[in-house]
Amino acid sequence: MLFGACYYPEHWPRERWDADAKMMREANFNVVRMAEFAWIKMEPEEGRFDFAWLDDAVALFASRGIQTILGTPTAGPPKWLLDKYPDIYQRDFQGHALGFGTRRSYCANNPVYREYTRRIVAEMAGRYASRPEVIGWQIDNELGAIDTARCYCEHCRKAFIAWLQEKYASLGRLNEEWGTIFSSQLYTDWEQLHLPAYSVHQGHNPGMALDFRRFSSDSFVGYQKLQIDVLREHGVDRPITSNLMGSFNDLDYYDLAQDMDLVSLDIYPIMKKVPEERPFRTGLNHDSMRGLKGRNYWVLEHQSGTPCTHAFSQTPKPGELRRWTYQSVARGADAIVYFRWRTLPYGLEEFWHGILQHHGKPGRKYAEVRQVGAELARLADKLRGTTVKAKAAIVKCFHNEWAFELQPHAPGFVYKDHLADYYRYFFDRHIPVDIVSPDTDDFSGYDLVVLPNLMMARDSVIRRIHEYVRKGGTVVMDFRAGAKEWNNRMREELLPGPYAELLGIEIDDYGIIEEENPNGLAWNDAPPSGRARTWYEVIEPKGAETVVRFTDDYFAGGPAVTRHRYGAGSAYYIGTEPDAATLNALFGRIAGEIGLSPALPELPQGVEAVVRSGEAEDGRVREFVFLINHLNGPVSFRLSGRHVDLLSGEAVEGAASLEPNGVMVLEKLG
Amino acid sequence: MLFGACYYPEHWPRERWDADAKMMREANFNVVRMAEFAWIKMEPEEGRFDFAWLDDAVALFASRGIQTILGTPTAGPPKWLLDKYPDIYQRDFQGHALGFGTRRSYCANNPVYREYTRRIVAEMAGRYASRPEVIGWQIDNELGAIDTARCYCEHCRKAFIAWLQEKYASLGRLNEEWGTIFSSQLYTDWEQLHLPAYSVHQGHNPGMALDFRRFSSDSFVGYQKLQIDVLREHGVDRPITSNLMGSFNDLDYYDLAQDMDLVSLDIYPIMKKVPEERPFRTGLNHDSMRGLKGRNYWVLEHQSGTPCTHAFSQTPKPGELRRWTYQSVARGADAIVYFRWRTLPYGLEEFWHGILQHHGKPGRKYAEVRQVGAELARLADKLRGTTVKAKAAIVKCFHNEWAFELQPHAPGFVYKDHLADYYRYFFDRHIPVDIVSPDTDDFSGYDLVVLPNLMMARDSVIRRIHEYVRKGGTVVMDFRAGAKEWNNRMREELLPGPYAELLGIEIDDYGIIEEENPNGLAWNDAPPSGRARTWYEVIEPKGAETVVRFTDDYFAGGPAVTRHRYGAGSAYYIGTEPDAATLNALFGRIAGEIGLSPALPELPQGVEAVVRSGEAEDGRVREFVFLINHLNGPVSFRLSGRHVDLLSGEAVEGAASLEPNGVMVLEKLG
Amino acid sequence: MLFGACYYPEHWPRERWDADAKMMREANFNVVRMAEFAWIKMEPEEGRFDFAWLDDAVALFASRGIQTILGTPTAGPPKWLLDKYPDIYQRDFQGHALGFGTRRSYCANNPVYREYTRRIVAEMAGRYASRPEVIGWQIDNELGAIDTARCYCEHCRKAFIAWLQEKYASLGRLNEEWGTIFSSQLYTDWEQLHLPAYSVHQGHNPGMALDFRRFSSDSFVGYQKLQIDVLREHGVDRPITSNLMGSFNDLDYYDLAQDMDLVSLDIYPIMKKVPEERPFRTGLNHDSMRGLKGRNYWVLEHQSGTPCTHAFSQTPKPGELRRWTYQSVARGADAIVYFRWRTLPYGLEEFWHGILQHHGKPGRKYAEVRQVGAELARLADKLRGTTVKAKAAIVKCFHNEWAFELQPHAPGFVYKDHLADYYRYFFDRHIPVDIVSPDTDDFSGYDLVVLPNLMMARDSVIRRIHEYVRKGGTVVMDFRAGAKEWNNRMREELLPGPYAELLGIEIDDYGIIEEENPNGLAWNDAPPSGRARTWYEVIEPKGAETVVRFTDDYFAGGPAVTRHRYGAGSAYYIGTEPDAATLNALFGRIAGEIGLSPALPELPQGVEAVVRSGEAEDGRVREFVFLINHLNGPVSFRLSGRHVDLLSGEAVEGAASLEPNGVMVLEKLG
Ligand SMILES: [Zn+2]
Ligand SMILES: [Zn+2]
Ligand SMILES: [Zn+2]
Repeated sequence: MLFGACYYPEHWPRERWDADAKMMREANFNVVRMAEFAWIKMEPEEGRFDFAWLDDAVALFASRGIQTILGTPTAGPPKWLLDKYPDIYQRDFQGHALGFGTRRSYCANNPVYREYTRRIVAEMAGRYASRPEVIGWQIDNELGAIDTARCYCEHCRKAFIAWLQEKYASLGRLNEEWGTIFSSQLYTDWEQLHLPAYSVHQGHNPGMALDFRRFSSDSFVGYQKLQIDVLREHGVDRPITSNLMGSFNDLDYYDLAQDMDLVSLDIYPIMKKVPEERPFRTGLNHDSMRGLKGRNYWVLEHQSGTPCTHAFSQTPKPGELRRWTYQSVARGADAIVYFRWRTLPYGLEEFWHGILQHHGKPGRKYAEVRQVGAELARLADKLRGTTVKAKAAIVKCFHNEWAFELQPHAPGFVYKDHLADYYRYFFDRHIPVDIVSPDTDDFSGYDLVVLPNLMMARDSVIRRIHEYVRKGGTVVMDFRAGAKEWNNRMREELLPGPYAELLGIEIDDYGIIEEENPNGLAWNDAPPSGRARTWYEVIEPKGAETVVRFTDDYFAGGPAVTRHRYGAGSAYYIGTEPDAATLNALFGRIAGEIGLSPALPELPQGVEAVVRSGEAEDGRVREFVFLINHLNGPVSFRLSGRHVDLLSGEAVEGAASLEPNGVMVLEKLG
Repeated sequence: MLFGACYYPEHWPRERWDADAKMMREANFNVVRMAEFAWIKMEPEEGRFDFAWLDDAVALFASRGIQTILGTPTAGPPKWLLDKYPDIYQRDFQGHALGFGTRRSYCANNPVYREYTRRIVAEMAGRYASRPEVIGWQIDNELGAIDTARCYCEHCRKAFIAWLQEKYASLGRLNEEWGTIFSSQLYTDWEQLHLPAYSVHQGHNPGMALDFRRFSSDSFVGYQKLQIDVLREHGVDRPITSNLMGSFNDLDYYDLAQDMDLVSLDIYPIMKKVPEERPFRTGLNHDSMRGLKGRNYWVLEHQSGTPCTHAFSQTPKPGELRRWTYQSVARGADAIVYFRWRTLPYGLEEFWHGILQHHGKPGRKYAEVRQVGAELARLADKLRGTTVKAKAAIVKCFHNEWAFELQPHAPGFVYKDHLADYYRYFFDRHIPVDIVSPDTDDFSGYDLVVLPNLMMARDSVIRRIHEYVRKGGTVVMDFRAGAKEWNNRMREELLPGPYAELLGIEIDDYGIIEEENPNGLAWNDAPPSGRARTWYEVIEPKGAETVVRFTDDYFAGGPAVTRHRYGAGSAYYIGTEPDAATLNALFGRIAGEIGLSPALPELPQGVEAVVRSGEAEDGRVREFVFLINHLNGPVSFRLSGRHVDLLSGEAVEGAASLEPNGVMVLEKLG
Repeated sequence: MLFGACYYPEHWPRERWDADAKMMREANFNVVRMAEFAWIKMEPEEGRFDFAWLDDAVALFASRGIQTILGTPTAGPPKWLLDKYPDIYQRDFQGHALGFGTRRSYCANNPVYREYTRRIVAEMAGRYASRPEVIGWQIDNELGAIDTARCYCEHCRKAFIAWLQEKYASLGRLNEEWGTIFSSQLYTDWEQLHLPAYSVHQGHNPGMALDFRRFSSDSFVGYQKLQIDVLREHGVDRPITSNLMGSFNDLDYYDLAQDMDLVSLDIYPIMKKVPEERPFRTGLNHDSMRGLKGRNYWVLEHQSGTPCTHAFSQTPKPGELRRWTYQSVARGADAIVYFRWRTLPYGLEEFWHGILQHHGKPGRKYAEVRQVGAELARLADKLRGTTVKAKAAIVKCFHNEWAFELQPHAPGFVYKDHLADYYRYFFDRHIPVDIVSPDTDDFSGYDLVVLPNLMMARDSVIRRIHEYVRKGGTVVMDFRAGAKEWNNRMREELLPGPYAELLGIEIDDYGIIEEENPNGLAWNDAPPSGRARTWYEVIEPKGAETVVRFTDDYFAGGPAVTRHRYGAGSAYYIGTEPDAATLNALFGRIAGEIGLSPALPELPQGVEAVVRSGEAEDGRVREFVFLINHLNGPVSFRLSGRHVDLLSGEAVEGAASLEPNGVMVLEKLG
């Protein structure tokens, strides 16, 4: 278990370093992240490299038992470089250059920038590949963040054309796939291709619009790969990662993760606006990150204070940092690196609070982190090799999310929130669930696979879904499933297209449910008990049984939820957005059918229970139940069996309770 | 009666065409609109023209009894042309080119584009002028739509200067009319003239701002005229039209209609946000279109499904398409062309639903359209030569609307909505009303002329209004009447300026009524019964009698509505925006005075009754009463006299009723 | 006492001038402001000057006893000049030129424009310096107004670099002060410096952002100085001023005022949105203007009708103009110049109503102004030499206001409103208060100094505050005091940094109070009685006594307000935004302690009482109490002692009353 903070030796007088290292050590830190914004320090002028200061910092911290994760500094190129090649700046959709300021203003497709990237990364690798104190590498910083994932410069246009040529081979195929014949937009020469930039109402062909998002994602995937390759070429053999951002979706994180050794996450739970939603929203972020590669991950920026550049968000209350830290560990984090050690007194993030306040003396946050450090030090050995094991999966697909962002179908519809509605069922009931790619090789490890809004899917995915159900799996699909081809044009089949046989239904008619005109839901022949939002479909069962019905409008009495036996399995279909109660009842029924069970059965909502398990060195499977109280008040519950709370060291049996922010890590006895 | 749909042969495999034509014929279609977005198919590369595919399509549909209206394709120029002359793109007010994407990005004043326009239109005309299957021509598509009516390029600046020179002859006169001496803005050379583009807060001289809107409208009027002339030069002798957009107001539709043989309308009733407002808002659109040339018109795009590019609007419920189709026919449409035949599976409008869904099989919308087709086929002969006849008119003036858009006077005031408030009285009471131009030669055919917000008027119009009242007419005028000269500067007279004698009042003091501080209205000496919004005036009667008074603030007791006898007629004046109840009472009183009567007296609001009448071939005047139930529930009413419902073929006498979406077309018996 | 209006001879036929002058004289006018937008009339083409018309106008008005204040016309450069040097236009943060239109589009750092400015000002000065009818000069018009205070052109970039070089001398120092090492933003060459323009999320270094605001302010201070110097060089010996805009804060008005002989103000009370706030908000504007130089000022634009360019604001009701005029006089205005004489019938301000309506005949506003003119003529001699004398001061600092605009700390926090909350206590209780600069040489004339949000302060200011309290003064400081260095980086000390000893407290922990989660306040050991908003601090008293405590959250029971004896004085500290009741109680306690007393003790809120006092020619101090009823209803009160109301001429003793809009100017008898 790595435990530490982000540290910027370049921000502080050298005389201060050791005081910081000492304080860290006292809090059981064993790692710092460094250097990811220090290009100007490493190459103060073109071609002149200076690593002496970093050598010193790495050595000094190592001397206190603290090792280093090094970041490549490409998120913040120096001004001398941008002045020499102003072409490097991204262009916005109207053609304005995104000038010097925040950070991340570079174009990932700029050939000159790629050259300078190679050089600085090679220099770092040459210097630190063989240093044992450097235990990991981070590529760049938050790739694509703050709306920098898409650039509209001429380099990007040329790269987009090359990408399209690679993808479609012939212009005829592109015209066909996008349907450019609509509105006389047929391209007759590759050079005519453009970016979906400023135009009349910015209306662009959906095929082009989606491909541009794919291309933009690929551009950063390629840019990251370029850096990884340079590191490897120069002998780096430690894990290479990059810090991702949970629900951020401008890049396809499955693709990005593919090239990493392990995934990293930046997590700021208290930044989320609605306090009640924080536990499950951050839970979803953690599970999504674990799902990227199907294993544990690092947290390379963990909130340690109020984050803010202009207006503060909430300050963590006493106990909050500890609580969120345990959520991270519970859901699969094998490293906790707080951002940042000490609040910086200058620069755009002068309000972005760290463990220490501006004044640098230990305060209440330091004390809390120190407590966590001591606890984790005791837990570390036990947790080694454990992770979260789930029998249910939710499929999250960036391409579908992008397509819904481009065209939300129903006004205000948000793919991410719809998926979160499903996720919440599992979170609230403490049922482990994986968030996985549609391209998952084999779903057969799962008893249940939920496929929200699977509007588009590759043929291989469609095939695998069928196979999975045929062999006994259960799927839940919903509206817009099968509506589109992979390139964002509509399928010319009756809905649900390729899933008609699997789901045993046909849909010819559909539309939105407007907020001012909601519809009701009724369990088969029961009186109305729920509400339908967002979308309706006039579903004709072709073998499926009706589970829930609409109660109003011209399609009243028609199915809203159906279930179809297919092979040895079952396929559910939901033709609307049900309210939470209906959704819970539906998933409760499904969970009952397939025997999904919660980590702890009788916990109230708002208390989180997660199991990390795995084979210990002795070959025995050990299970650790993390219990976290997110509520404002204390909570009481009962445990069956005898446990020991590894934090307090005390045995727990029968009645137990947790204070607000309280945490237990239980191991079953006997 | 033309009945059909928009069809895009270029979107579908040739093998499919005949299946479509056959299905259409079975629904009694006799017309399709084609080719208005097919430039790239007709001229795939510069100077190489290919009409073979279109020849085939026209012939194939004709062979099924379906004739063609051809659209010129200039709304969608091909990419090869824009790449060769990027200058063609419109520029926004900050100078950004509106690049390739949606459509309509061309500048109507670009000389090169006008040249290419001439060429493609000439080629089409040469090919199809003499083809009998081609029964009409549409110019371009939705001229000015989606914010493309005003361009800020250098060509437009030069054209604007020429337009101003033509209008003002001398720079001195322009400076005088605009009042450029204000803020040191006097122009001393024609070349100094600029467009009202990006500036400090975009504040521009009101005279310049209004003239730029006039110029921009004239630019498209001229661009349409250019195409009409080319068609005529090449022998086209069928009706030439262009599809207009109801309440769209970036172009002066009176001017645009002048050059057409007949007006066409695109109508999407269900896109309007507030369902209750849909019947009267679309009614107003229909009556406005009929008023442009004072005769019947075509509907060239009639809603046939959910329209949407990104987020759906409501899907038509069963019976809705039929209901809206009958409203169109009732109010003067002699052609119903649905948009579109089949929902396109690609392109920006892949969600813009047609009669057929994406899958192309007949469904519930096709069945409904087919029913309408059969019904209209029976009605067609009877309706020939009939139209709506009105004794009341509302004057709609684009120049005043523009002036209020530029300076709304009261915060949030909308000219169009204010006019609609008046219109609604007539609509709800089934009293036919024309929407006419202020330049109408002669108002003497009307018993009542309502002139909302006639802030500016040409002298000839002012003269005609006086003449009309003097000879016995009744007018209703209201606030801001006479406040401005035609070139958007204030008159330097006591209000209501040129109407002082006509209205018998004087106004020195005025202001806004803020929402948080409403005023009351009272009928002469009665207690307060209504509310006044938006505007107040301190009216001093100079011969007028007071009809309604304000009840609050420092002008309490002063007139809000006055009436003045002038010659043989009456002139009402309303110095505020009364609530609906007061307005209805006022118009009720006026209707009583002059004897306006409804189509059917005792229908509830929400049911529409319209009369189409005319001289049949036997010289007898025939009347057809359309009754349309827009309500959610059934409605019962009584008819005096004996009628036959031409749709059901049944006699109707005394008590009658209509289901929701129900329609009757009654002819009086005996 | 000057009394008059803004007059634009260039807008009206010469034949009209004398009629206007005559009407003015009848209203006791003795001054007009002219020429500030007449550049094109004075220099119709480059180098050809024409002042004949202005000579005539000045002479004609003088012949009626009306003298002239001349404005330099640089706010509205002629089009010929901008066409010749389009470089003069300001550039916005994305680089777009702010083209011709409203006004004020010039860049104050443009060297060519500065040259042309010198020339036109020199010409005017040469012509009018020695004319006795010209009694004052106004520089430009509303410098910086309508978002023109900051320009992003290349001239400005170069000027900014020069400004930075002057300020920081070395680049190393700049890098250090701004902390550019953050995010690799270190500058290694002066030429790398840029403006805080368009960038990723426009995030810029806080030091740069604040310095750019300072530089921009200095640019206009310098531009004004340039004009003043030219006037002086050419012999102008009459007062030079410039019309400021109350709470406008893009320029540092203390700096701007420094170079003026006296301050002028443009005041439009009825434009403020919330009627109940108008009295104290305009009061604050007046007191702020009086505080700029610590003496009386002119009102060069006083509202005289509805102001509006596009949508009207409220029309002044009968009596309102008089009421606001007396507020101006009461708070220190020695000139009332209405804007404008007559409503202009053209140009962007054709709705900006003056004393006369468009038609130019005397109406109700003229009658009211005429009454005021007669009254003020009687008061003028008595008021000469009097002003408002205050024992309390509120420190307003533009640099802190800018810093809070750049980073509001708490979401939605507004420095100006926070200051206004404090001001309101004094306004509502009729306690005179000065609004003064932090750089005030000596606070010892005050019994109380309130220092809202003094986040940054120069060392000299910090020293003076300490000195002031040590010698017996009382200060009120509040949250964020001492948080930052003068160059917008955080101090690296425990809060409140340099005020720790003064305030006797320490603060390590702080955060925002969110609206959805308010906190309570309790007077020491009393039950909760108030609410805390916006901000909290965990205050540890180090010698201070606790006055008010928080009641909720983890810091419940901790101090919210403290008081500390320091030397002979007291230092209060407020660690939150208390509700009005708590604030009033707190200030009531302080006022009691130091013996601040109101002008009149028992007036209800909403009635204003202000004292102007001073030494009369006979050496006797005279006091005039202005009583103004801002309420909608009449108000009764009691006066102690015998007074005469100088407006009615009647004696007032004991019970007295004021109608709505009523005003008294009382002088004590005996
Ligand atoms: Zn790029
Ligand atoms: Zn143009
Ligand atoms: Zn500039």
